[in-house]
Amino acid sequence: MVRVALGVEYAGDAFLGWQSQQHGHTVQDALETALAQICAHPVRLHCAGRTDAGVHATAQVAHFDTSARRPPGAWVRGVNALLPAAVVVRWGVEVDEHFHARYCASGRRYRYILHNAAVRPALLAGRVGWYHRPLDVDAMAVAAALLVGEHDFSAFRAAGCQARTPVRLMYDARVVRHGDYVVFDFHANGFLHHMIRNLVGTLCYIGNGRRPVAWMAELLDSRDRRQAAPTFSADGLYLCGVDYPPNWPLPDEGRIIALPRIPLI
Amino acid sequence: MVRVALGVEYAGDAFLGWQSQQHGHTVQDALETALAQICAHPVRLHCAGRTDAGVHATAQVAHFDTSARRPPGAWVRGVNALLPAAVVVRWGVEVDEHFHARYCASGRRYRYILHNAAVRPALLAGRVGWYHRPLDVDAMAVAAALLVGEHDFSAFRAAGCQARTPVRLMYDARVVRHGDYVVFDFHANGFLHHMIRNLVGTLCYIGNGRRPVAWMAELLDSRDRRQAAPTFSADGLYLCGVDYPPNWPLPDEGRIIALPRIPLI
Repeated sequence: MVRVALGVEYAGDAFLGWQSQQHGHTVQDALETALAQICAHPVRLHCAGRTDAGVHATAQVAHFDTSARRPPGAWVRGVNALLPAAVVVRWGVEVDEHFHARYCASGRRYRYILHNAAVRPALLAGRVGWYHRPLDVDAMAVAAALLVGEHDFSAFRAAGCQARTPVRLMYDARVVRHGDYVVFDFHANGFLHHMIRNLVGTLCYIGNGRRPVAWMAELLDSRDRRQAAPTFSADGLYLCGVDYPPNWPLPDEGRIIALPRIPLI
Repeated sequence: MVRVALGVEYAGDAFLGWQSQQHGHTVQDALETALAQICAHPVRLHCAGRTDAGVHATAQVAHFDTSARRPPGAWVRGVNALLPAAVVVRWGVEVDEHFHARYCASGRRYRYILHNAAVRPALLAGRVGWYHRPLDVDAMAVAAALLVGEHDFSAFRAAGCQARTPVRLMYDARVVRHGDYVVFDFHANGFLHHMIRNLVGTLCYIGNGRRPVAWMAELLDSRDRRQAAPTFSADGLYLCGVDYPPNWPLPDEGRIIALPRIPLI
C-alpha cells in the first residue's frame, strides 16, 4: 500500500460541503469517484479541514491509501481530467504511512473576504460575503487581536460541533481593509464548527458600532454562544493553508495562503 | 417618458449571453423582467455591448424608457432585490432622450484574463481562460501593439458577424503578465463578433512560439478569417468599460475598468 497526499482547490458554492453524503454532491464524493477510477479500487479520503457547504478552499490537504502503482502525474493530470470544473488537484505526492492529513496538521489558515459596499456583488456572488453598511476596520482589528492565544471558544461554537474540547490556540487573527473589501485572516491549531463565521459576524457587530471592542473579551469569558452575533454567510470563507511539521515532504503550496490572484487595476 | 441609463455587472457563466432569447435565460431577460415589475409596464433595454454566452461584464451600460416616476434608488436597490444573484445594477441615472447606450458609445474596453499554469483553475473556472503551456508575453505585447490604429479586422471576425463594416479603430491593445495570469486589455471604438476571442487565440499562437510576431500584420493584411487561430474560450472575457462623450452625466464607474478587486496576498 502507498499513502498519497493531495493539495486540493475548490469552489464551495458548487458543492454540499466537503464531507461525503449519501445523496450528496460533495467535494469528497467527487474526488473519491475520480480517484477510484485511477486506482481501480474504492478510495477513502481523509482531509485536514472538513469545510461546510459553500466554503471554498485554495489549499485543502487530503490523503488516501492505494494498492495502485501510478506515475506521479496520475494524481494530478489523471484525476483532474475526471473531476468537475469546480474542483482540482493542485499537487499529489507519496507520503509515508504515518502521515495523516487531519491528525498531523499543526495549524489551519482561513481567510474571509467581505465585500463592504452599498451594492451587492454579482461577479463574485457566492465567493465573497457582503455587508452594506460602513465598517470601522480599525476597531475590528483591535477586537480580533484579543482572540490571539489559547482560549475557550465556546461562545463561537455551533450547537452541533463534535470537537472534544472548545479550547483552541489562535496564532494570529487580523482584519485589513483593501478598498471595498475587508479581509479577515485567522491562523490557529484548529477551529470549532462555524467558529470563523461566528467570529466574522461578531466582528461586524463591533465594526458597525453596535458593540464596543471590549465585547470580544466579554464573549470569550462568557463561553455562551447565545451572546455572540449570528453566524455569517459561508460565501466569503476560504481554507487557504494547512501547516504540517517540516518532516513531511509536502509542496510549499499546501502551507501558504494562495488565494485566486486576480490582477488589480 | 423618462430615459434611464443603468450600469450593470454580471457573471456571464450564469447566462446565455446578453441578448433576449425566446427560451433563453439571458441578462437582458433578467433585467427586463425586474424592471417591468418596478415600472409596472413592459420594458425594452438597449445595451452598449451585446456580450456572448459566458462573457462577463463589470461595467455594461444599458438604457430604457419608462412612463413610471420612481425615486432614484428604485433603479438600483429596487431592481437588485428582484434580480438573480449573478447580475446587479450598480448605478441608475435619468438621461435625456438623445442618449442611446449603443449609438452614443465612443469606445468599449474589454479585458481577457488568462490563467497560464500547468494546473487548470477550479475556484475561477468559468471566470478566467486557461492555457497550460508557457507563453512569451513580451512577444504577445509587441504583436498586440500592431493592432493599434484603424484596421480592417476581417481576419478576426466571426462568420455570423452582422456589423456593417469590418473596420475598427483600436485605441490601445496591451498584454501584461501578473504572475500566473496574462491580462489582455483592448480599447477600441467597437469590436466585431468574436474579435477579442480570435485575437486572444492568435496572440497565444505567437506567445507559444508557433508563429512569429509578424504573423499579426500578415493576418490583418490577409483579411481572411481562415488564416488566424481558433476562437479562444469566452471564460476570461470581461466588458469592463464603455466610453461616452463628456456631455452625458453618467457615473465615472461606467467609464473605467473596474474588475473584481480581490486583494492579493
